[in-house]
Amino acid sequence: MDFSRFDNHFGEVDLEIERLLSGEPEKLYKAARHITFAGGKKIRPLLCMLSCEALNCDKKDAVKTGAAIEMIHTFTLVHDDIMDRDSLRRGVPSVHEEFGETTAILAGDLLFSKVFEVSDTRAVGILAHAAAEICEGQEMDMEFEERDDVPESEYLLMIRKKTAVLLEAATKAGAILGNGSEGQVSSLAKFGLSLGMAFQIHDDILGVTADEEKLGKPVGSDIVEGKKNLIMIKAKELLQGDERDEFTRILGNGKESDIERGIELIKNSGALEYCMEKEKDFMDDATNSLKDLPDTEAKKSLLELANFVIRRDS
Amino acid sequence: MDFSRFDNHFGEVDLEIERLLSGEPEKLYKAARHITFAGGKKIRPLLCMLSCEALNCDKKDAVKTGAAIEMIHTFTLVHDDIMDRDSLRRGVPSVHEEFGETTAILAGDLLFSKVFEVSDTRAVGILAHAAAEICEGQEMDMEFEERDDVPESEYLLMIRKKTAVLLEAATKAGAILGNGSEGQVSSLAKFGLSLGMAFQIHDDILGVTADEEKLGKPVGSDIVEGKKNLIMIKAKELLQGDERDEFTRILGNGKESDIERGIELIKNSGALEYCMEKEKDFMDDATNSLKDLPDTEAKKSLLELANFVIRRDS
Repeated sequence: MDFSRFDNHFGEVDLEIERLLSGEPEKLYKAARHITFAGGKKIRPLLCMLSCEALNCDKKDAVKTGAAIEMIHTFTLVHDDIMDRDSLRRGVPSVHEEFGETTAILAGDLLFSKVFEVSDTRAVGILAHAAAEICEGQEMDMEFEERDDVPESEYLLMIRKKTAVLLEAATKAGAILGNGSEGQVSSLAKFGLSLGMAFQIHDDILGVTADEEKLGKPVGSDIVEGKKNLIMIKAKELLQGDERDEFTRILGNGKESDIERGIELIKNSGALEYCMEKEKDFMDDATNSLKDLPDTEAKKSLLELANFVIRRDS
Repeated sequence: MDFSRFDNHFGEVDLEIERLLSGEPEKLYKAARHITFAGGKKIRPLLCMLSCEALNCDKKDAVKTGAAIEMIHTFTLVHDDIMDRDSLRRGVPSVHEEFGETTAILAGDLLFSKVFEVSDTRAVGILAHAAAEICEGQEMDMEFEERDDVPESEYLLMIRKKTAVLLEAATKAGAILGNGSEGQVSSLAKFGLSLGMAFQIHDDILGVTADEEKLGKPVGSDIVEGKKNLIMIKAKELLQGDERDEFTRILGNGKESDIERGIELIKNSGALEYCMEKEKDFMDDATNSLKDLPDTEAKKSLLELANFVIRRDS
């Protein structure tokens, strides 16, 4: 997908964030800017602005709130990296790696404060509620690591909170700022939520099937690290007898040499097909939820963006 | 001061916070509630409600925003304790000590999210701005620890951000919710800010002069821990010759056995008198800023509360 036609959208959001993240003490603001401007696709503010435009309003009404949503995303990345001890993010050292943990905690808090300084008043409740759910989702994710079995339903609830609600907040807030009717707000919210679910499941699939160089991290590492995701849960459920025992032994055993066999077992199990089917279901939900909206350039872009999400290879 | 006549105020704020901090995952919500209900004077929500009442409005209009302000305070305590490696808070283990660091980071983030779920829309900008300034103040405070000399003006800016702006936000928000005129909002904001400055300077004084049992922590420990506060800054400035050299050697040297001599030098220097004078100046500013408000029970309580702040012995 060619994102260059959205350069103007991204430019306005960047300007807004730059303005918000100028201040003192210098070290703190530098830390807050560090991964903000180290790349990242800025899909969330784009969803917010396009949702506003899909209701024939000007994107400028959604720039500040789009910036706010991107800062929620960045704030969670900064704190998640501390919790997960991840030392790299977007190809650069993570904030705590570069500035120390205390400044990283504060930089996250500062980003979060700025969210509510800039967001349109009408979106504050939506954003705050999404942020609380993201915290719940992250806690669930961490608790999953210490459990042997996680049912699919709990996993889907976790990714809904951790990932999908912020995309939902983006499209919903955009629709509200675009003065949408109740039905339109609910349609666009549904679009964001379903897209978010598909987005996360696609990530899980990529973690096993992607080209390692394009993905930028080791393929299959989730298996031996004991991460619970839909593929692992489903593979464990579908495998039988010896293969199931073998897979259970490999899960979370930390042995890199077992990754290849783990991937093979997943492929044998049919779990990949199951996840792709699930992804397609969410994608269909997303697409369907826009069917009553007027045909606009923005709606076309939203559908194209959705398609990109499930076709990307990294 | 007898706080029991505010039992109804505190009760309503507690109810609101309890309602907000009920949810799942259980561990996360338990962590968020942990120090919230382990005591603490809840002076900030009280300031918010009394400011509203001082303008002849009902305190119920300020309960939710008062609860929000208390949660900002709690959230900063949770994260500060992680940064400062403090294992005790309000007489119980700090959140990271009891629930682990990752859950403590998230519990702080959850508290912060809830702030903006509950705050009155009219107060969101004030609260968000105060929160950003608290982050700046905490970063300044941490950076001071690595510096030899901190000018008084920088120290005052730091405590303004780290402590006083939240009391200012409390009284200002209360005044706005009480439909105050521009002048009334500004008077009550000024009251909160000046009170906050006096409050922090009083804390600094207590750190050297208090009765150890009442204070609940070692008196004078700030001296050998190298904390920069107004007393240390002023003592270093006022002492001359050998006494000054001796004091400089003791500052931050970590030797408990030097605390007594450190306190003696501070007392000789005149720094205590200087700080008490400074505290009185801020207190006078606070009192004066209320002079044009109508004489109400709430105004009387605000002045009494201010008096309590500079007379408390712990």
